[in-house]
Amino acid sequence: MSGLFITIEGPDGAGKSSVVKRLVEAIQQTTDRPLVVTREPGGSEIAERIRAILLDPIHTNMDDRTEALLLAAGRRQHVVEKINPALQRGDIVLCDRFVDSSIAYQGQARGIGIKEVKDINEFAIEGLRPDLTIYLDVDAEVGLNRIKDKNSNRTQDRLELEEVAFHEEVRKGYLALIEAEPNRFVTVDAGQSEEQVFDDVWKIVRERL
Amino acid sequence: MSGLFITIEGPDGAGKSSVVKRLVEAIQQTTDRPLVVTREPGGSEIAERIRAILLDPIHTNMDDRTEALLLAAGRRQHVVEKINPALQRGDIVLCDRFVDSSIAYQGQARGIGIKEVKDINEFAIEGLRPDLTIYLDVDAEVGLNRIKDKNSNRTQDRLELEEVAFHEEVRKGYLALIEAEPNRFVTVDAGQSEEQVFDDVWKIVRERL
Repeated sequence: MSGLFITIEGPDGAGKSSVVKRLVEAIQQTTDRPLVVTREPGGSEIAERIRAILLDPIHTNMDDRTEALLLAAGRRQHVVEKINPALQRGDIVLCDRFVDSSIAYQGQARGIGIKEVKDINEFAIEGLRPDLTIYLDVDAEVGLNRIKDKNSNRTQDRLELEEVAFHEEVRKGYLALIEAEPNRFVTVDAGQSEEQVFDDVWKIVRERL
Repeated sequence: MSGLFITIEGPDGAGKSSVVKRLVEAIQQTTDRPLVVTREPGGSEIAERIRAILLDPIHTNMDDRTEALLLAAGRRQHVVEKINPALQRGDIVLCDRFVDSSIAYQGQARGIGIKEVKDINEFAIEGLRPDLTIYLDVDAEVGLNRIKDKNSNRTQDRLELEEVAFHEEVRKGYLALIEAEPNRFVTVDAGQSEEQVFDDVWKIVRERL
């Protein structure tokens, strides 16, 4: 028996965390199959230490390629320690961000190049692909406004200190990925209400359980 | 004016630290040209934080590919922050270990593959090559015995807890690199006395100043 690997992708402010939270409840109410919920960057002890370097606001001088390599390093450890063993046990793995984020953010938006970022990630994942990727599509300005509204409750991290133009590039990166692998992705309009977004996501996920 | 980039390579126990120390003194007594002395993994604030993750003896579960990606990430930051600016100023840069170490250790000895490790490092260095690489060649057992003799003075780090067979693979990796780029490398017999090793190294370096 092999597992089910689902990733959630989208620009900041698309509402990924909320979708993941509701999805966990819904999956657990529907099936007894073990569910592993995780996120990137991070997801294992070594990967969390790498995450801390990535998100430290003091590191304003971090080079874009350093960032891409650190993300790939954390991802490797995450895959080996957590994702692969769970999939081999037959579990459902729900992951907030995966390789597509690196390609959209570092490859496209930071301008390193989609192919180059794909290659270093291929070194890290050795062929692992999600069975299903839900892309939460949201207009750059809507997404950024949502982040600003949340700011009274938490501090901004370094990766979130970005402009509208950058977010538009991120979206362009995702759309290129979807064009290349239309069967793996399902796009959900994340400009809708939280309830409606979740209803759309749940229809897709329930089918795969 | 462009700088002079010299790297020192070799298996553990070849005597790199001692050679670097003497080389610094000799270069400074010979020329007024600014000298930047650095080492890998590390060499910049972000790279030192990456180094700490790499060398932490607690991380016995670190995957080989994670290690290779972390080394490449630290190297990228080191190149961008320290090596490239120094070379652009026309300085001499003396670096204890560089890409060749990753290829010999991770590519050959850990068995990831020379080409794959070269590729992720090319992503990191974007074409930068040392002008001169001094390879301190030492028999695996001699090198390991030297490390053991030093152990009363310091604790072994994770990367040094390796066996003779591993060190022989490392050496094999270096010898393959030298075969591929004979003009960049100069091999020094590091089985000789410390004095004699340094004399050989200095003859080569003095010519290039």
